[in-house]
Amino acid sequence: MARPDGRSADQLRPVTLTRHWSIHPEGSVLVEFGNTRVLCTASVTEGVPRWRKGSGLGWVTAEYSMLPRATNTRGDRESIKGKVGGRTHEISRLIGRSLRACIDLKALGENSVVLDCDVLQADGGTRTAAITGAYVALHDAVGWLAERKSLAGKVEKVMHRSIQAVSVGIIEGEPRLDLMYLEDVAAEVDMNVVATGDGDFVEVQGTGENGVFRRDQMDALLDLALAGCADLSAAQQKALAA
Amino acid sequence: MARPDGRSADQLRPVTLTRHWSIHPEGSVLVEFGNTRVLCTASVTEGVPRWRKGSGLGWVTAEYSMLPRATNTRGDRESIKGKVGGRTHEISRLIGRSLRACIDLKALGENSVVLDCDVLQADGGTRTAAITGAYVALHDAVGWLAERKSLAGKVEKVMHRSIQAVSVGIIEGEPRLDLMYLEDVAAEVDMNVVATGDGDFVEVQGTGENGVFRRDQMDALLDLALAGCADLSAAQQKALAA
Amino acid sequence: MARPDGRSADQLRPVTLTRHWSIHPEGSVLVEFGNTRVLCTASVTEGVPRWRKGSGLGWVTAEYSMLPRATNTRGDRESIKGKVGGRTHEISRLIGRSLRACIDLKALGENSVVLDCDVLQADGGTRTAAITGAYVALHDAVGWLAERKSLAGKVEKVMHRSIQAVSVGIIEGEPRLDLMYLEDVAAEVDMNVVATGDGDFVEVQGTGENGVFRRDQMDALLDLALAGCADLSAAQQKALAA
Amino acid sequence: MARPDGRSADQLRPVTLTRHWSIHPEGSVLVEFGNTRVLCTASVTEGVPRWRKGSGLGWVTAEYSMLPRATNTRGDRESIKGKVGGRTHEISRLIGRSLRACIDLKALGENSVVLDCDVLQADGGTRTAAITGAYVALHDAVGWLAERKSLAGKVEKVMHRSIQAVSVGIIEGEPRLDLMYLEDVAAEVDMNVVATGDGDFVEVQGTGENGVFRRDQMDALLDLALAGCADLSAAQQKALAA
Amino acid sequence: MARPDGRSADQLRPVTLTRHWSIHPEGSVLVEFGNTRVLCTASVTEGVPRWRKGSGLGWVTAEYSMLPRATNTRGDRESIKGKVGGRTHEISRLIGRSLRACIDLKALGENSVVLDCDVLQADGGTRTAAITGAYVALHDAVGWLAERKSLAGKVEKVMHRSIQAVSVGIIEGEPRLDLMYLEDVAAEVDMNVVATGDGDFVEVQGTGENGVFRRDQMDALLDLALAGCADLSAAQQKALAA
Amino acid sequence: MARPDGRSADQLRPVTLTRHWSIHPEGSVLVEFGNTRVLCTASVTEGVPRWRKGSGLGWVTAEYSMLPRATNTRGDRESIKGKVGGRTHEISRLIGRSLRACIDLKALGENSVVLDCDVLQADGGTRTAAITGAYVALHDAVGWLAERKSLAGKVEKVMHRSIQAVSVGIIEGEPRLDLMYLEDVAAEVDMNVVATGDGDFVEVQGTGENGVFRRDQMDALLDLALAGCADLSAAQQKALAA
Repeated sequence: MARPDGRSADQLRPVTLTRHWSIHPEGSVLVEFGNTRVLCTASVTEGVPRWRKGSGLGWVTAEYSMLPRATNTRGDRESIKGKVGGRTHEISRLIGRSLRACIDLKALGENSVVLDCDVLQADGGTRTAAITGAYVALHDAVGWLAERKSLAGKVEKVMHRSIQAVSVGIIEGEPRLDLMYLEDVAAEVDMNVVATGDGDFVEVQGTGENGVFRRDQMDALLDLALAGCADLSAAQQKALAA
Repeated sequence: MARPDGRSADQLRPVTLTRHWSIHPEGSVLVEFGNTRVLCTASVTEGVPRWRKGSGLGWVTAEYSMLPRATNTRGDRESIKGKVGGRTHEISRLIGRSLRACIDLKALGENSVVLDCDVLQADGGTRTAAITGAYVALHDAVGWLAERKSLAGKVEKVMHRSIQAVSVGIIEGEPRLDLMYLEDVAAEVDMNVVATGDGDFVEVQGTGENGVFRRDQMDALLDLALAGCADLSAAQQKALAA
Repeated sequence: MARPDGRSADQLRPVTLTRHWSIHPEGSVLVEFGNTRVLCTASVTEGVPRWRKGSGLGWVTAEYSMLPRATNTRGDRESIKGKVGGRTHEISRLIGRSLRACIDLKALGENSVVLDCDVLQADGGTRTAAITGAYVALHDAVGWLAERKSLAGKVEKVMHRSIQAVSVGIIEGEPRLDLMYLEDVAAEVDMNVVATGDGDFVEVQGTGENGVFRRDQMDALLDLALAGCADLSAAQQKALAA
Repeated sequence: MARPDGRSADQLRPVTLTRHWSIHPEGSVLVEFGNTRVLCTASVTEGVPRWRKGSGLGWVTAEYSMLPRATNTRGDRESIKGKVGGRTHEISRLIGRSLRACIDLKALGENSVVLDCDVLQADGGTRTAAITGAYVALHDAVGWLAERKSLAGKVEKVMHRSIQAVSVGIIEGEPRLDLMYLEDVAAEVDMNVVATGDGDFVEVQGTGENGVFRRDQMDALLDLALAGCADLSAAQQKALAA
Repeated sequence: MARPDGRSADQLRPVTLTRHWSIHPEGSVLVEFGNTRVLCTASVTEGVPRWRKGSGLGWVTAEYSMLPRATNTRGDRESIKGKVGGRTHEISRLIGRSLRACIDLKALGENSVVLDCDVLQADGGTRTAAITGAYVALHDAVGWLAERKSLAGKVEKVMHRSIQAVSVGIIEGEPRLDLMYLEDVAAEVDMNVVATGDGDFVEVQGTGENGVFRRDQMDALLDLALAGCADLSAAQQKALAA
Repeated sequence: MARPDGRSADQLRPVTLTRHWSIHPEGSVLVEFGNTRVLCTASVTEGVPRWRKGSGLGWVTAEYSMLPRATNTRGDRESIKGKVGGRTHEISRLIGRSLRACIDLKALGENSVVLDCDVLQADGGTRTAAITGAYVALHDAVGWLAERKSLAGKVEKVMHRSIQAVSVGIIEGEPRLDLMYLEDVAAEVDMNVVATGDGDFVEVQGTGENGVFRRDQMDALLDLALAGCADLSAAQQKALAA
């Protein structure tokens, strides 16, 4: 089975990272992985939550959400249902953990950053696009703090690693990189990998959606993901240099 | 006091209506009134809610929301607070009522349309931009139904009127059209007017935010609003003709 | 079509304002517009919400609710549904804004007043009756503060305007004052007007429930409403003088 | 310690039962035990909840609530808190159980009655006043069904017992009937008794609020309560005969 | 009708009280009344809720809950329903009140204890088993405080009474002690009695589930309950002495 | 650093699987991994949720929860907070997905099984213990269906794989199996692995809690986990054979 958009198995979709998409946030990036389109904003506030006051450490957290018609069929709003669903919780927590791995909270000082990742259009890989874009938005927010002399350390020290994320999966036995929605629903195995620009892992979440997977398949997927993350890292560096 | 962006008192901000902004919805319009940016999507489903079944009538409803960092200061998500706020409720209901005024629900047949108006960036006038954009999204959704031969009547019959909305207000005694945020917070009187392309009223909501207003001020505001709505109507026709 | 209760088009229903209906609140008024019956209580607390402390300003807020069987068909309790509905929110906000327009918050000093408007029986015009009655309850509560020497200013200074509200509408083309329920559901246009004893507007909310309305109809409705508010103002003065 | 209102220990407060207080409900009674004032309405609907359909049995349920300023200090609304409190739950369940004890659900046929007991003013004994008033409201609602030939049995068969309730307690060692608020908070033992017109028990709930109580005290309280209920039964019969 | 497990009418089921069932809590008791199995844990925290600070008094509260499959048919979790049901509220409040009756809150000093009673398996009498077990868990928690020299008074002074609870009921006219589930659903009258080791009452809650009950039946049930509580008191003393 | 309980790095804690711990559920297993103690019950209902009716397929779902004092410090109940937390959601979803991987839903036929995993005592690894125990409870529930001739296929066909789960992590650079709580909080990398009795993966979730991890560390952890799962599989077989 060829890929729906004709890519090779180890090829990313076109990636764009548009900085300063919004006027209000301290960092704001529209990230696109093909048709997947996520608005990532970084909101800075001075100070930290009460339980962290006086620690000298900053705080980074994330919230993920999807517009009701980001998908092919309209989903009900969680605000109207009156509760946040399990999937939303799970992804918000993943994004927050991942971004905290790239930032030195001591060098950030007692500042807080909330990363809002709102999916405007979904075509698979929304959480990985969100992490990849949120890294750039966070970088801009840290730069904004630096300009105001509000950082405990230098920008390079605060953002001591870069972070990227990509999905991989096995479709009809073939390991593939960066699944689009049609592939996602057909995958036997689905894995999200968060990695650093240096090729280390931050988080690996793999699931046998319709079955189980062997150790050698696991290895193939990890290889594919690390290669994809290296490409995403290059795209981030290019966007930040612009 | 001159207007912050140098407009004359009876001048709209630049208005853009970008159709087909998203790939999934049956109608999707990114509407911009200056820096205010609202994504309006129209989602069609066959059939109507249970209480309306067998009536031969369609149904149109609307939901308004704001991204957390659409504004200068981040607001908490209503999904996380677990309830929809009074302001959100109020605006959603206003948009729904307004759009039902421009559509012949009998000619629509037993189809339902949900209009989602998500504010991506706010600078005053988000509800009036939402109504103006949602009209175009609804028009596209009705066109989509027509193409599929799923309409009881013709598009022109279903969309038997056009609808626009604009804010007006009094700042330091001067009536002004289409307030931006800085003007909104300074206004003595704030009014939202929904009108038809024929110059009739659909809804008028005026409030003396910091005081009261005289009958002659009321008249001046209504004149200004009807003129502004005529300009918005022209912009809508142009977008739909494109 | 004659009016169901034989009134002329510009006539109010019988209005009664019973002060001191309850023993506990600082102000309590049972207001009746015909069969519509609303208990308005004003509860005073020393101090203001945290965000207002040290400002020297007082605070006034309102909550509107309906008993489940105030209407012809029993409605579910919002406490049991676990959330406040959009209509309730909207009316509570309207009452709060309106009452804040008649009171000098600086002269009130750092005191808070909550106005609870509970509809015991509904027959149209519950929100306008609530505003009209709440004004009298608020006046009594301010008088109570004056007696305890807890006001920053004199009662007349604190209550620097009187406030009334009435509904108007168009039924079969005829503009009418103070709609009862049967008229309300039949109205082509429905408008609520909050005005001052001096004949200025505080709030105007007009809706074309089943269509649109012309500029001249708007004018006729505003005239009718201001005349009705003048009568309500007289009733309030009489009650307060008793 | 004499009673605050000079009553003897075994004397009820003045009791009034005003039928037809509201125009909409099938039964509506304003019950007063001294300053305690509860509006009891009975709402009839044809049919029963789904789990009971086809059983031939009717259904009776109750909801108790207090207006925010029914008490000396304003309480927050449960609709705004978003949940019903434990005390409200407990009392609603008690009222429902008690009223189901006086009605023959088979003779009622597949009809449902909701009893809403809203406390307009509280001065102790709100739950017992509510039960006593709700009995009369339910009787009127059953009469209404009889007039419409919608009852499976006769009114006397459906309402096969009368139900009353009263509070008793021990203050400074003295057993007293029908406690007002000041006595309620001072009581060592507090007991609510629901009884039938024939002097049998439906429900007994006694609590040693500030301690424990002996068997002989228990006996004295039960005697006092049964005598009070007999007086309440007479008041109900008189109201129903009017 | 013989009892399902062959007991005589005035006989308890086998009672076991296993102390130190869990490693984390300051007191933890697995209590069994026949097949009814409740885990009672006592959690101590230094300090008291804000409204009680500086009073010199401690605080004891309780929470009751049932595992979803503690019963014959699975019940939905209250966490997922998003609200605590009326029955749960009622029982939690009963347990809290009962336990506060056995403890001298002044001698406890400004310490708080939460008693969690989680029903692992239900066969009637869960609330009475919970109270009986919670007393022992609370005793152990108070002992733990004594060992840490954190008590204002001695253990015997703090725990100045013992508390037990048992259910009684009338089945086919016969008064019976300690109902199991099959008896509970068949009972004409159902009563829960909380008593002290000295034979005084703390709480009595009797309901005519399927009818009403006479004064002499009431007396018989109270006798049966006090005898049962004396046996439970002996079991508690034995467990605490072990 | 030696392990707190003296185990070698590749050694499980003592594992016990007690079947038939409760009398009501169709399957019930108390699973213990050292001090971690989870009650897993399987509740069978005939039929499937509405969206699955007529598919011929069964349904398996899971709910995880923790008693408030299962941990060293008492946690608030989610029922009282009114919402299920992100962590609970995440684990419930993981358990459900994992168990669906071991069962042939077609052979199960249109039956539903809910797996409740309630943590009675926590000392690390609660989710992996829950999965391991829930497999046995599910097996018993399927056996129960077989005895009642309610299965579409044979037990061996329905339960076509066995499933186990274990945690692994890196502490001070050393990969370790089956972390207890003290190790869990100290781990640089924390991974949960769900595997089959045949040594394939069902789910892998690894997180660099305090940093990142290299590819070779990943490999070491996967080896350790598969070896641990093989031991757990043996323990399950032994329990099921008893």
